[in-house]
Amino acid sequence: MTTLEAAGHEVRVSDLYAMNWKAVVDAADFGEHATDPLRVIPSSGGAYQAGALTPDVTAEQEKLLWADTIVFQFPMWWYTMPAILKGWVDRVFSFRFAYGVGVHDETRYGERFGEGTLHGRRAILSVTVGGPESHYTDRGINGPIEDLLFPIHHGILWYPGVEVLPPFVVYGTDSITGDAFERATKMWRERLLALETTEPIAFRRQNFGDYEIPSLRLKPGLELPGRTGFGLHVRG
Amino acid sequence: MTTLEAAGHEVRVSDLYAMNWKAVVDAADFGEHATDPLRVIPSSGGAYQAGALTPDVTAEQEKLLWADTIVFQFPMWWYTMPAILKGWVDRVFSFRFAYGVGVHDETRYGERFGEGTLHGRRAILSVTVGGPESHYTDRGINGPIEDLLFPIHHGILWYPGVEVLPPFVVYGTDSITGDAFERATKMWRERLLALETTEPIAFRRQNFGDYEIPSLRLKPGLELPGRTGFGLHVRG
Repeated sequence: MTTLEAAGHEVRVSDLYAMNWKAVVDAADFGEHATDPLRVIPSSGGAYQAGALTPDVTAEQEKLLWADTIVFQFPMWWYTMPAILKGWVDRVFSFRFAYGVGVHDETRYGERFGEGTLHGRRAILSVTVGGPESHYTDRGINGPIEDLLFPIHHGILWYPGVEVLPPFVVYGTDSITGDAFERATKMWRERLLALETTEPIAFRRQNFGDYEIPSLRLKPGLELPGRTGFGLHVRG
Repeated sequence: MTTLEAAGHEVRVSDLYAMNWKAVVDAADFGEHATDPLRVIPSSGGAYQAGALTPDVTAEQEKLLWADTIVFQFPMWWYTMPAILKGWVDRVFSFRFAYGVGVHDETRYGERFGEGTLHGRRAILSVTVGGPESHYTDRGINGPIEDLLFPIHHGILWYPGVEVLPPFVVYGTDSITGDAFERATKMWRERLLALETTEPIAFRRQNFGDYEIPSLRLKPGLELPGRTGFGLHVRG
């Protein structure tokens, strides 16, 4: 934050613990728009379109629309984000705001994966990981870090249109020394100052010819040789 | 539950919404064992070893030790579990219970990935997914369902020793019809009655020769031809 402000940027911080962020989606999120029994999609969309989501959620949506760049800072817990941050996604990424946007026809399947409400913004994950880097490499027992982060990068951020920068990951934080901490801090400052010029991950856009619609399977032959799984959805 | 009890099984249910489950890890979870500032690993391990974790967490740990089979039922939200269930994992899977178990030496890197406190149990995920199945296939835009579930199957369940059965996934639940619902219900009953005889996913065990220690990289040549990423960690 200091680094960014010193470089002339405006910064707004959402410290979820300090905000005592409510992590769990329930009927109270949707007021009179909550269906009974609760069906989250129509309740969420109804409340959003009526401007009736709770003030904490509305404030976060406004911050997202205000920002040109979003930094997510979290520790990896059980190979993904802690519950409090997942609950921020579950509540802030409401129907008609983050999903259920745009028309579905023969050439477009909604505005998502490269289009959507948050198009024009970029994001970066800054993640601290307890274990050593080798455990997160191509042959590492936890799986490659880029695959572990894919559901966040592609499924949460690229989905509503956010361009995603390569993540900043600090390994071995359970036992980090003063020297390693200083090195990590210095590298993070450099990444922050390069946010505007860093090349995003080249995720494929959904509605621009790479996928069959509506099956949304990648068309044959587009992949790089030997690339499978999540890696198919990154251009060459 | 009815199906399992009719077949002679004892069942205990944890309905997290009905229990008003606290999703967020904080200092209150660890009482006098909480460090200040809060460091989750030592606080969690200290409280666990002193028998001083909160009663809600202790009750869930006891249920896990009591069970021979654990069924997780949840909707896929943003490509993983809802925050309330992630918060169950974050709080119940405490240090010295689910991780930080066993010695680390030249031949063993703790008891995990096939060994650990929950060894001898099996689990199955029952997941409802809004979108159609094609989006979750090998070439589907969301990525293959087995890769999306890998961080849960392998990273959360196999890690403390639980054998994981192939998941039960119902697609298209946003618009499911009566007929499709009946078919899904029938298939789920069949899966429940076959829990004891279903072959688990053949994840590799950490400490039995497949991995270099301590790098925990899969030894060269063990993979099936063409298999990469998460798939490396499943035997042929």
